[in-house]
Amino acid sequence: MNKIMRRWELPKFGRENLRLVEVPVPTPDAHEVLVCVSAVSLNYRDKLIIQNGMGLTPDMPFTPGSDMAGTVVATGAGCHRFAVGDAVLGAFSADWLDGAAPGTGRDLMPALGGPPLPGMLSEYVVLPEAWLVHAPSSLDAVQASTLPCAAVTAWQALIELGHLRAGQSVVVQGTGGVSLFAVQFAAAHGATVIVTSGDDDKLVRVKAIGASHGINRHSTPEWAQAVVALTGGRGADHILEMVGGDNLERSLDALIHQGRISVIGVFGGMGATLPVGTMLKKRATVQGIGVGPRRVLEDVIRAIDRTGIKPVIAAQHPFSDLQTGLDELDRGPFGKVVIRGVEHSEDNKLRMNSENE
Amino acid sequence: MNKIMRRWELPKFGRENLRLVEVPVPTPDAHEVLVCVSAVSLNYRDKLIIQNGMGLTPDMPFTPGSDMAGTVVATGAGCHRFAVGDAVLGAFSADWLDGAAPGTGRDLMPALGGPPLPGMLSEYVVLPEAWLVHAPSSLDAVQASTLPCAAVTAWQALIELGHLRAGQSVVVQGTGGVSLFAVQFAAAHGATVIVTSGDDDKLVRVKAIGASHGINRHSTPEWAQAVVALTGGRGADHILEMVGGDNLERSLDALIHQGRISVIGVFGGMGATLPVGTMLKKRATVQGIGVGPRRVLEDVIRAIDRTGIKPVIAAQHPFSDLQTGLDELDRGPFGKVVIRGVEHSEDNKLRMNSENE
Amino acid sequence: MNKIMRRWELPKFGRENLRLVEVPVPTPDAHEVLVCVSAVSLNYRDKLIIQNGMGLTPDMPFTPGSDMAGTVVATGAGCHRFAVGDAVLGAFSADWLDGAAPGTGRDLMPALGGPPLPGMLSEYVVLPEAWLVHAPSSLDAVQASTLPCAAVTAWQALIELGHLRAGQSVVVQGTGGVSLFAVQFAAAHGATVIVTSGDDDKLVRVKAIGASHGINRHSTPEWAQAVVALTGGRGADHILEMVGGDNLERSLDALIHQGRISVIGVFGGMGATLPVGTMLKKRATVQGIGVGPRRVLEDVIRAIDRTGIKPVIAAQHPFSDLQTGLDELDRGPFGKVVIRGVEHSEDNKLRMNSENE
Amino acid sequence: MNKIMRRWELPKFGRENLRLVEVPVPTPDAHEVLVCVSAVSLNYRDKLIIQNGMGLTPDMPFTPGSDMAGTVVATGAGCHRFAVGDAVLGAFSADWLDGAAPGTGRDLMPALGGPPLPGMLSEYVVLPEAWLVHAPSSLDAVQASTLPCAAVTAWQALIELGHLRAGQSVVVQGTGGVSLFAVQFAAAHGATVIVTSGDDDKLVRVKAIGASHGINRHSTPEWAQAVVALTGGRGADHILEMVGGDNLERSLDALIHQGRISVIGVFGGMGATLPVGTMLKKRATVQGIGVGPRRVLEDVIRAIDRTGIKPVIAAQHPFSDLQTGLDELDRGPFGKVVIRGVEHSEDNKLRMNSENE
Repeated sequence: MNKIMRRWELPKFGRENLRLVEVPVPTPDAHEVLVCVSAVSLNYRDKLIIQNGMGLTPDMPFTPGSDMAGTVVATGAGCHRFAVGDAVLGAFSADWLDGAAPGTGRDLMPALGGPPLPGMLSEYVVLPEAWLVHAPSSLDAVQASTLPCAAVTAWQALIELGHLRAGQSVVVQGTGGVSLFAVQFAAAHGATVIVTSGDDDKLVRVKAIGASHGINRHSTPEWAQAVVALTGGRGADHILEMVGGDNLERSLDALIHQGRISVIGVFGGMGATLPVGTMLKKRATVQGIGVGPRRVLEDVIRAIDRTGIKPVIAAQHPFSDLQTGLDELDRGPFGKVVIRGVEHSEDNKLRMNSENE
Repeated sequence: MNKIMRRWELPKFGRENLRLVEVPVPTPDAHEVLVCVSAVSLNYRDKLIIQNGMGLTPDMPFTPGSDMAGTVVATGAGCHRFAVGDAVLGAFSADWLDGAAPGTGRDLMPALGGPPLPGMLSEYVVLPEAWLVHAPSSLDAVQASTLPCAAVTAWQALIELGHLRAGQSVVVQGTGGVSLFAVQFAAAHGATVIVTSGDDDKLVRVKAIGASHGINRHSTPEWAQAVVALTGGRGADHILEMVGGDNLERSLDALIHQGRISVIGVFGGMGATLPVGTMLKKRATVQGIGVGPRRVLEDVIRAIDRTGIKPVIAAQHPFSDLQTGLDELDRGPFGKVVIRGVEHSEDNKLRMNSENE
Repeated sequence: MNKIMRRWELPKFGRENLRLVEVPVPTPDAHEVLVCVSAVSLNYRDKLIIQNGMGLTPDMPFTPGSDMAGTVVATGAGCHRFAVGDAVLGAFSADWLDGAAPGTGRDLMPALGGPPLPGMLSEYVVLPEAWLVHAPSSLDAVQASTLPCAAVTAWQALIELGHLRAGQSVVVQGTGGVSLFAVQFAAAHGATVIVTSGDDDKLVRVKAIGASHGINRHSTPEWAQAVVALTGGRGADHILEMVGGDNLERSLDALIHQGRISVIGVFGGMGATLPVGTMLKKRATVQGIGVGPRRVLEDVIRAIDRTGIKPVIAAQHPFSDLQTGLDELDRGPFGKVVIRGVEHSEDNKLRMNSENE
Repeated sequence: MNKIMRRWELPKFGRENLRLVEVPVPTPDAHEVLVCVSAVSLNYRDKLIIQNGMGLTPDMPFTPGSDMAGTVVATGAGCHRFAVGDAVLGAFSADWLDGAAPGTGRDLMPALGGPPLPGMLSEYVVLPEAWLVHAPSSLDAVQASTLPCAAVTAWQALIELGHLRAGQSVVVQGTGGVSLFAVQFAAAHGATVIVTSGDDDKLVRVKAIGASHGINRHSTPEWAQAVVALTGGRGADHILEMVGGDNLERSLDALIHQGRISVIGVFGGMGATLPVGTMLKKRATVQGIGVGPRRVLEDVIRAIDRTGIKPVIAAQHPFSDLQTGLDELDRGPFGKVVIRGVEHSEDNKLRMNSENE
């Protein structure tokens, strides 16, 4: 095969070391498929892995990027889940299909774009077919690429583990990628959604996607009391804790009796203070959320196709403009930043065909 | 009615102020019963309430004591749950019958012996019949009196919320009242039980009631690693966290992937440090346990009658020797300390009858 | 007190024996409230009890009617849940507050309007305050009166026990009271709702309240295959089985692997055929739904206030026109039939006051 | 490779057509292992598949047998779960690893020994390593071979889905393979176990493995009333329904309010009558149980190693005596019937080695 593709590589840690290289398009083995990558959504986690590996020590060079939408262009022997032409998404936690999470949890669970698993910032990738799911029919590739990490995390916290139902109240902290999906999913289940943010403009925008109330953390540092007031004195049924530190204490204050706090965040060295007395009186549940299995991604896709939810896209860029996208992540975008892969225009197909000759 | 009974009262906070008074035996109103108290089990919480009220401000004088076994000696109008002669236990959280816990959780939930609810250190008490359950048939009153707080807490953590099953592993920290029931309940469900303690003698004794392994926290400060080793590298499915502070960090280290930590403790001002990174990697659940509803007490009683579990009694004393019992609590007894109430001997019955004349 | 009120009574079974009598307004005892009844929603069950008692043998005369909305007009001693002026609903299963259902389940669980509990077709009723909940703020009394039986049943099946989530599919059989709430609740949680009916006109109308698809059982007797097709070959996650007989077999055919069938229906002598082979292959759950506890009614009310769902009212009639309402039940109305109680006009208040003199 | 092995084959349906053939030992591909079969436990299902395929139409000849214990003797490329020498069991439902069951449930789920998946009645088998688990350390191969179908089914019903806890009561119908494991697992969790059987001798024997009570269905046809009496009027929390027909009606009579009936049985054309009125009053759950995922087998193994439960073995036979074993199945043995595979004596190892040369 003489096809050539572009791929982002990192010969050693540090954003400044990212380089765009040309390599041969790989070939799928048995139970594998070759996917033409249409879009890669960036996560803050990608930035951390590029910067320092988050404790992982990959063979260099490695390719970052975990959230991918694309199209199957070739299948290896024995494939039965997908055919050429199928639109697909990668499942973030590759080997976690359903039920109990694999591994001991002492190390970071392997994920696409987190070594040793392959990264998605490549025009083509070869993946075991077990790591893929069918893309939603109601989204384009740029939108769909945002689901595997952020949407699954929000769904795992609120729906899969939280059993959210209409009439409950949800506090979503901040307006990052997981938070925006949490707003949309909670609203789609008939919940009251309260968003905290330091930015009034973003509080206006979250209302447009389903939030009922916004609280500016700067002007209302006692946001927990505001939540209690907004919920008629009950407190919030679910809280997505993104901040850590002593913020967890305020989350417990804002919580309903026997309520649930989902701790979500970067996999860094953060600590938080847990006020045990409040936790006991509230009979609170605090759970660490680490994305979720492939089956949850399939549930998310079905829900999105049914409800018409559209992921919020802050910006999209051509494959070569990865650095622009990473810059945007630093500025706290409202919505996901997506890098486009190979364009599926007729021109591109022709180019592919000619390359095949 | 000219009957007189003895009752412990506290005119103001402080153990030194406890006094034994004689007052008339009360009369039950509609839906209430008069219970002759056979035994009152002491909890560390009782000590705290005697000392400073735990933030509660009762009308003085008040009577402490929450765990009671006794016999119904009179019933008010409309009672249908109990008849005279029934052996009964008080349900710790009085108005929490089943399902969602009442109240907002911002204050301590009302409990027997925690003002404004009546205390049990009285030879007779009048209680709404809804606050009582039938005593187990396999225990005497001294044993049975230990169930409402300590046994319900252990069961709520491991069985009701934890869905413990045979083959799982449980770490129980310390050998207090809740811990000993946790050992017995976990063993009765076929679990591997690992107890941590600073006292080798107690580690020997917990094995006699069902523990599989003991770890001395002094000689093995890295007890989390020991737990991982004892569980074949998996970590413990359930951990009862009693210590707080930085111990929670070690509990997370000892935990299995997606495992569960039940935080149990005095309702004081304790804090704990929550290492968020570990919590996320482990996908851990940390839940505050605050005793449980009346229905769980009924489940506990049924389990005890079926399995033959006998509560561990460290000491029992006559009604007048309350101070001796409180002294023992300070020394960390192995088992519950119980104060006996009215003795149900024939003599006593005669005395009761003659008083009735 | 010389106030007089009207009440429907049944001196012996049979609809023809219903009579409207005048009796004194009752007075609440301790822990009871006097409620001025604004609306009573009729259930098919009410018809059965009027006809033959459904196996119950009440003291005659008795008053039927279980679903009530009204206003507290007086409170007995010790009431703390409600004050005069509060809008309230009766909780259908009176003593089932939360958690495990009381009683052995061998007999019909006591319910308002099902002897020995009092019936609601009375201008005033006295009830223990524990049997009431605060009315929704977004509904008038006629709408609110429809919730305690039909809405709670639908919610108990789909949300409380079924953990319905967005993207799942629900089959609702027929367009009775429970079915219409099921459509509205499922749609409010982002589910795909498929309704089966023998009436094309009703299939049009259910789409207006949230159904995605309608299947006419007459023109499509193989409706199970239609459900499988509409769900992309998967089958329905939840099915509300209302029909019994051999219809359960088709419900199993329409069900997803590991799906859930909620059996709902009149408490009569119906049987159904359970095809064990299909049940095993499908790993199906079939559960009998018998309304639900008071806490679920409170959840329903919160959800309705949040989502803006309005119960479908087929007809409403003055208090004296009960027979007209019962006639309508026989014709299979689309929506609930409600009997109005005392009107809360100023005139009425004046009348009440003058009666008080 | 010149090794030869024996294998049972069926050129067409019918027990009389079973033949023992000699074929080459197969070689594992990537992600596959070669297992030397030590024991194959027979299930009634195996008989049905031999007789008529249970609706499956395999390529002939095919090899029956689904429950296997053996030893890994060679590994293909990329294997990481097992090494040569590991003792292993096959997981019955091959591709069902955890969580949601694969497939639509409209057809029998693929299982070892149920075409098109390979059968285990072979001295050596090649299997994907994903289909195997580590054998228990506390059982020999004959005992261990009984776990994948019968033990997993009992555990799935009572523990995984039923959340059985100490003090609950379980009715187990009959004394087949699933029933005996159900007795042992329920007893190991502290439950009261009531067994129904038509054979007094077997009722004596089930008490030796943990049953609390036996009811002879012939002498006590009203066994449901007996269960209610034995449970103090409450009824049984869990019932394993094995019989079908109108027996389900009696199971519902014996059930506690909100109790649970697990329907287990051969995958034949059986029907059962479901009395809807009783089901509604009891708020009963009836669930079809179809074995369970690989993760449940791992849970079972851990529980067995912890509790010391030993499977009941009715008989074991050499590999060539399959027909004798099948005969025994017809007579309703008390315990499992096991066919031994290759013996792991030193002699055998030598033979293997010499063959390898």
